[in-house]
Amino acid sequence: MKNKSDIEIAQSCTPKPISEIAEALNIEPKYVEQYGPIKAKIDYNYLTDHPAEDGKLILVTAINPTPAGEGKTTTTIGLADGMKKIGKNVVVALREPSLGPVFGIKGGAAGGGYAQVIPMEDINLHFTGDFHAIGAANNLLAAMIDNHIHQGNELNIDPRKITWKRAVDMNDRQLRNIVDGLGGKKNGVPREDGFDITVASEIMAVLCLATSIPDLKARLGRMIIGYTRDDKPVTAADLKAQGAMTALLKDALKPNLVQSLEGTPAFIHGGPFANIAHGCNSVMATRMAMNLGDYAITEAGFGADLGAEKFFDIKCRAAGLNPSAVVVVATVRALKHHGGVAVKDLNEENLDALKKGLPNLLQHVANIKDVYHLPCVVAINAFPTDTKAELDLVEAECKKLGVNAVLSEVWAKGGEGGVALAKEVVKLCEEPNDFSFAYDINDSIEGKLDAIAKNVYHADGVDLTTDARQQMEQLESLGFSNLPICMAKTQYSFSDDASLLGAPKGFNITVRNLKVSSGAGFIVALTGDIMTMPGLPKVPAAENIDVDETGKITGLF
Amino acid sequence: MKNKSDIEIAQSCTPKPISEIAEALNIEPKYVEQYGPIKAKIDYNYLTDHPAEDGKLILVTAINPTPAGEGKTTTTIGLADGMKKIGKNVVVALREPSLGPVFGIKGGAAGGGYAQVIPMEDINLHFTGDFHAIGAANNLLAAMIDNHIHQGNELNIDPRKITWKRAVDMNDRQLRNIVDGLGGKKNGVPREDGFDITVASEIMAVLCLATSIPDLKARLGRMIIGYTRDDKPVTAADLKAQGAMTALLKDALKPNLVQSLEGTPAFIHGGPFANIAHGCNSVMATRMAMNLGDYAITEAGFGADLGAEKFFDIKCRAAGLNPSAVVVVATVRALKHHGGVAVKDLNEENLDALKKGLPNLLQHVANIKDVYHLPCVVAINAFPTDTKAELDLVEAECKKLGVNAVLSEVWAKGGEGGVALAKEVVKLCEEPNDFSFAYDINDSIEGKLDAIAKNVYHADGVDLTTDARQQMEQLESLGFSNLPICMAKTQYSFSDDASLLGAPKGFNITVRNLKVSSGAGFIVALTGDIMTMPGLPKVPAAENIDVDETGKITGLF
Repeated sequence: MKNKSDIEIAQSCTPKPISEIAEALNIEPKYVEQYGPIKAKIDYNYLTDHPAEDGKLILVTAINPTPAGEGKTTTTIGLADGMKKIGKNVVVALREPSLGPVFGIKGGAAGGGYAQVIPMEDINLHFTGDFHAIGAANNLLAAMIDNHIHQGNELNIDPRKITWKRAVDMNDRQLRNIVDGLGGKKNGVPREDGFDITVASEIMAVLCLATSIPDLKARLGRMIIGYTRDDKPVTAADLKAQGAMTALLKDALKPNLVQSLEGTPAFIHGGPFANIAHGCNSVMATRMAMNLGDYAITEAGFGADLGAEKFFDIKCRAAGLNPSAVVVVATVRALKHHGGVAVKDLNEENLDALKKGLPNLLQHVANIKDVYHLPCVVAINAFPTDTKAELDLVEAECKKLGVNAVLSEVWAKGGEGGVALAKEVVKLCEEPNDFSFAYDINDSIEGKLDAIAKNVYHADGVDLTTDARQQMEQLESLGFSNLPICMAKTQYSFSDDASLLGAPKGFNITVRNLKVSSGAGFIVALTGDIMTMPGLPKVPAAENIDVDETGKITGLF
Repeated sequence: MKNKSDIEIAQSCTPKPISEIAEALNIEPKYVEQYGPIKAKIDYNYLTDHPAEDGKLILVTAINPTPAGEGKTTTTIGLADGMKKIGKNVVVALREPSLGPVFGIKGGAAGGGYAQVIPMEDINLHFTGDFHAIGAANNLLAAMIDNHIHQGNELNIDPRKITWKRAVDMNDRQLRNIVDGLGGKKNGVPREDGFDITVASEIMAVLCLATSIPDLKARLGRMIIGYTRDDKPVTAADLKAQGAMTALLKDALKPNLVQSLEGTPAFIHGGPFANIAHGCNSVMATRMAMNLGDYAITEAGFGADLGAEKFFDIKCRAAGLNPSAVVVVATVRALKHHGGVAVKDLNEENLDALKKGLPNLLQHVANIKDVYHLPCVVAINAFPTDTKAELDLVEAECKKLGVNAVLSEVWAKGGEGGVALAKEVVKLCEEPNDFSFAYDINDSIEGKLDAIAKNVYHADGVDLTTDARQQMEQLESLGFSNLPICMAKTQYSFSDDASLLGAPKGFNITVRNLKVSSGAGFIVALTGDIMTMPGLPKVPAAENIDVDETGKITGLF
C-alpha cells in the first residue's frame, strides 16, 4: 500500500505558513510569536482577552497498551483531519514528546503514516524549547537547595530528606543514583542524589495545570523540595526560587501551534508522565483549542484506566472543563494480545483470542459510560492483517454496550480515513451528558484510592503498606487530604500487575508509597517502582540519526 | 545623570520588528526564521548562496579585567551605534551570555546603560535555545558513553580515563565532583564523574568554529571522550554519536539576529569560555556580519592577552579572517586598580597609581601593533569620577606609542557618545596592515607555548611540569602537534599569577596540564586550576527575579 517512513511522509508535505493557520483561526497577529515559518507560540494573554470557551471537548483514550501498538496519537490527529474533511472547525491539543526517548528505542509521538503533525523532526527534538526551560527551572531550584545547605542551611533542611531531584532530558541510567557534593568543603555537601528525565519533573505537571503566570508562580512556590530535620516541609518559596523559575518558564507557558499534514491546527504543549503525573497536555492549550475551535480534540497518556481517569478527575476537575465525548482506541491485534496471543502470532486471525481480549476494551468503554457518564465511540485503528470476522466481532460486542465501533483508516488514508469516525463523534457531541467524577474530592485519601480501585480498575479493594499508611497520616496532618489522587501504576493492566491482561478480576491494589506534588496539586500513589529515568538500549536509535549539509534530518524513525 | 537600571532602559525601548532589521540588511525573507517578533535566526545557507565577505572586521578587546569593570561589550555596542550615527553600514557580532551566572552574582552580558542589545531578558535567559541544544548534545554523548560501557564495553573504554563530562547551564557546585552509576547492575557502572557548566563543553567551541553542517559533524566526530585501557583515544565517532548530535545542533548553528537600543543589527551567537576555549562568538556570525555590513564589530573574552590572542591565533587563523583594526577598552578606574588602588578608593583622583597601572594598557596596545601588526585605538570607557588630568595622562601615554585614546561615553549617551571612537575606527580601517600571528602553526607545541609566553605575556619563558611534558609527548605521538594553542590562564594578569597586576616582568609561565580539544581543533594548556562549574553566592540573584502577570520580568539586574 505504501512504504514510506513517517519522516519521509512528513518531509514530503509542504506545510502552510503558520501565520496562515493562525489567521484562519482569527488569532490577531499580536498574539502570534513565530518560531521559524511553521511553528508559533500563542500568547497566554489571548485567553484573558478572549474569555469565551465554547468548543466541544473530545478526549481520545485507549485500551491498555500492548507491544502491538494502538495508535492513539495517530487516531487523534486523523480524527481531527476527518472532522475538517466534513467541514468542521476543529483544533487538536496534544502532548509534546520527550527528547530522551527519541535517541533510545521509542519512535516519535507526532502521529504516524498520513496522520501526523509537522514539523515532526522539530516536535521530536527541541521544538520551541519548553522542555529545556522546564529542565533549567528544575535545576535552578536544585542548585539553590544545595547552595542553601552549603551556605549555612538556615532553613535546617535535612540533606537525607531532600525529595527534589535534578533533571536532564536524556535517557541516562548512569544518573539514576549518584553521590554529589564530593571534593571537599568548597564543592558542596556530600549526599545521595539522582536525576529524573525532565518530563518527570513536578514542574512539567505544574506548567500543564497552570492557568496564568500568577497561578504558575504560586504553584512553583508551593512545591515541596524536602523536609527539615524535624520533618516540616520546605518549599521552593522558602528558598525564594519561584520568581526566577517563573522567569525561566514565561515563554514555556505559551501553547505551541503547528499543523497536521492536512493543515488542521494543532497545539503541542507540555508532556507530563502519565504515572507519577497526570499525562495530559497543558490546560492552556486545551483552553485555546476550545476557544478557537468548535471542536477541540485532545488525548491522555497510556490506557483509559490511567489517562482518561486523570484527565477527568485531575485535569477537568482542576480546570473546570466539561468534555462532550470520548473515543476509545483499540486495534484487533492489541485485543488479541490481551487475549493471550504472542506478538509474533498477531498476524493470524484468532477469534477466540479476540473474544478473550475484548473485555479489556469493553471495561474501559463501560467505565466511560457508567462512571464518567459520557458518550463514547470505539475507534478500531485498522491494520492490513485485520479480518472481516474479527472486525465484526469487535463491533458486535461494543453494540451490546450501546456503543458503536468505527473503523479508522487514518494511518493509511489521512483525514479521508477518519470521516466515519468524525461523523460519529459529531453525533455524540450533540447528546446531552451528565459528566461526573470517579470520586468526591472531599472524601478521605483512603476513600478516594478505594473509589478509583473499585470503580475504575474493578479491584476488590486497596491495601496500603505500613509505610504508605504512615505517609497518608502525615499528608492528612499537613492538610493535603482534599487533593485529587494521581495513581502511579503499570500501564499494561487494569491491575497493579503488568502480566494481568484483559479485564482481570479478584485482585487488590497495593499502594506502597504516597507523596504529595503540592505544586501540581495532587497526591501520587505509587503501586510499585516507577522508572523516572529511562536508559538507552544496546544499539541506541541515536546511532542512525544523521543530518545532510542543508540541515535535513534522516534516520529519526 | 540617569538612574534607570539596564533592564528598565531596555524595556523602555520600542524595538523594530526583526523582519525590518533583516530587510534593511537585504536578507531575503526565506533565510529569516523568526523567534517571536524581535529575534530571528538566519539560515546558514545564506552564506553558501552569498559568498562575498568584504566588510572590515574590527575587534574590541580590553586590558586585563579588574573588579572595577571595563565595559567591553558596552563599548562594542556603543561603537556600532556610533558608526551608524555617522552613516556607516555596521553589524555587530557578540557572544551569548551563559544562563547560570544570571542567577548568581554576575550581571548580564548584553551591554549596559544606553548601549545594549535587546531583548536583554531573552538574551540573558534561554534566547533561541542554542545553549540548551549544546547541553543536550553534550549529555547525549555522555549517556552513549556510559551506555556503551554498561552494554559490554566493546571499545574497551577505561572508566577511569573518561574525559567527557556531563553539562548543565547552571551554577551548581554540588555537581562538580560526583560518583554516578550507583544502585546496582541495572543502573550503570559506578565511576567518578562531574558536570561542567554548558558553555565549558567542547561542543560550544566546536559550534563556534564550525563553518557548515558537514564541518560541524566532522568536528563532533573527532572529539575525544576518553581513552581505552591501553591508552588509545576514543572519539564520539567511535560511538556513532556525531549524526544525532548534529541533529540536535542543526538550528543552533544558525546565527541569531537582534538589534541594539538604536536599531543597529547585532548577531548574538555562541559563547565559549575564554580560558579552556577560545572565547569568541561563532565564525558563522562573524562571517555573516562581514557579509552584511561594511563594518563588522566583534569582541573577544577577557583581556587582550587571552581574548585577542585567541581571536587572532585560533579563530582568525582557522576561519581565514583578516581583521582591519583593534579597539582596546580601558577605564581610568581599572588602570588605577592595576596601579595598586583598592576598589573602595577608585573614586579619588590618583595620577601616581594611574601611571603605575598604565603599563597594562600600553603593553596590550604594543602587542596589537608589534605582534599582530594591526592598527589600534584605545577606548576610554568614561566614568563620572574620571578627572581631566587622569584622562589627559592616558591620552599622552598612548600617544607615545602612536595610538590615539578616545573617550567613549556610550553608556550614558548611546551612539552619540561613540561618534568620536567610530570616526577613529573608520580612519584606522583605511590604513594598510600586515596582520600576522603570534606563532607559526607548524612550530612544535613547546615552541608555540614559548612564543605566546614571550611575545604576548612578556614572560621570560615556559616551564612544563613533568605531567605536562608527558602529555605533550603523548599529543605529539597522536599527531596533534600542528594544532594552535589555547591558553587557560588567569584573566587578571599577563602572568599566571592573578595577583601580578600592571605589566609584570621577570616571571615564567608554568604549564601544568596539556590536553587536546580535537573537535575544536586546539591544544588546551592549563597553567592552574580553571573552574569549569561556578557556584551560587550566599544570596543568589535568583531570589530577586520576578515576573508579573503579563510576563514582564523584573529584578534581572
